[in-house]
Amino acid sequence: MKKLMLALLGITLAGGAAAQMKPEEAIKFRQSAYATMAWNMQRIKANVEGAYNQDEVIKAANVIQSIANSGMGALYLPGTDKGKGWEKTRVKPALFTDKEQVGKLATNFNREANEMAKVAATGDAAAAKIQFGKLGETCKACHDDFRIKE
Amino acid sequence: MKKLMLALLGITLAGGAAAQMKPEEAIKFRQSAYATMAWNMQRIKANVEGAYNQDEVIKAANVIQSIANSGMGALYLPGTDKGKGWEKTRVKPALFTDKEQVGKLATNFNREANEMAKVAATGDAAAAKIQFGKLGETCKACHDDFRIKE
Repeated sequence: MKKLMLALLGITLAGGAAAQMKPEEAIKFRQSAYATMAWNMQRIKANVEGAYNQDEVIKAANVIQSIANSGMGALYLPGTDKGKGWEKTRVKPALFTDKEQVGKLATNFNREANEMAKVAATGDAAAAKIQFGKLGETCKACHDDFRIKE
Repeated sequence: MKKLMLALLGITLAGGAAAQMKPEEAIKFRQSAYATMAWNMQRIKANVEGAYNQDEVIKAANVIQSIANSGMGALYLPGTDKGKGWEKTRVKPALFTDKEQVGKLATNFNREANEMAKVAATGDAAAAKIQFGKLGETCKACHDDFRIKE
């Protein structure tokens, strides 16, 4: 009946899949996305500090870029400030209230992730090393402000 | 000393970061990458079955495409046929031996993931629905052959 009412009102929940997502699922998905980026940051690090394989760095940078631009904010649903996905969330309550700082750090991260993918495509190992450092700083800035230390 | 020997021999392990990865880390990373793709498959599903938001589908398809092309095979290290990442791995032993079938299914998955991103970019909702079905079939084919049922 509720479904019918929503249909009659022209309201669809389908576009907002996140609205149907359980809190523990949202936490699991964001932990997964961060871990996937961590894997690829490790790959870039190994390449800029050791033998540089352009193809490896491009693949890794593309993963980070696509996740950075995926709209992960949708996974920070109300009710996901506490709880467990794969493990207990380490998000600080401030992430849900300090919109201005979150927005600023997210914008910085997106910009550097996009730039990392651009630099990777050129094959310039020295530039990739510098850009990797800049990107890592934007990760750290968010961890410092919004992630509980282990 | 071993490090020095390797350096003298001109051998570097840095390019193969996976070689330094612990088995549990490799399992965690692949579980994370699959979960990240599952999140984005859910997003595409919600869009092709409900209100279609082109931007949402593009973002989701780009994540799946980048992970499909990331070289996840490197995470199937020797010694990761058993063990725990976020949870106990569900990989079947055959994945480590049946190279031909793994290669075939991986090629199919990559092709359809690349096509999904292309179709998403056009904004054609009907075509996206068809392509989503094709992509899902390639996921299922690999689960059927190489993932232990829950």
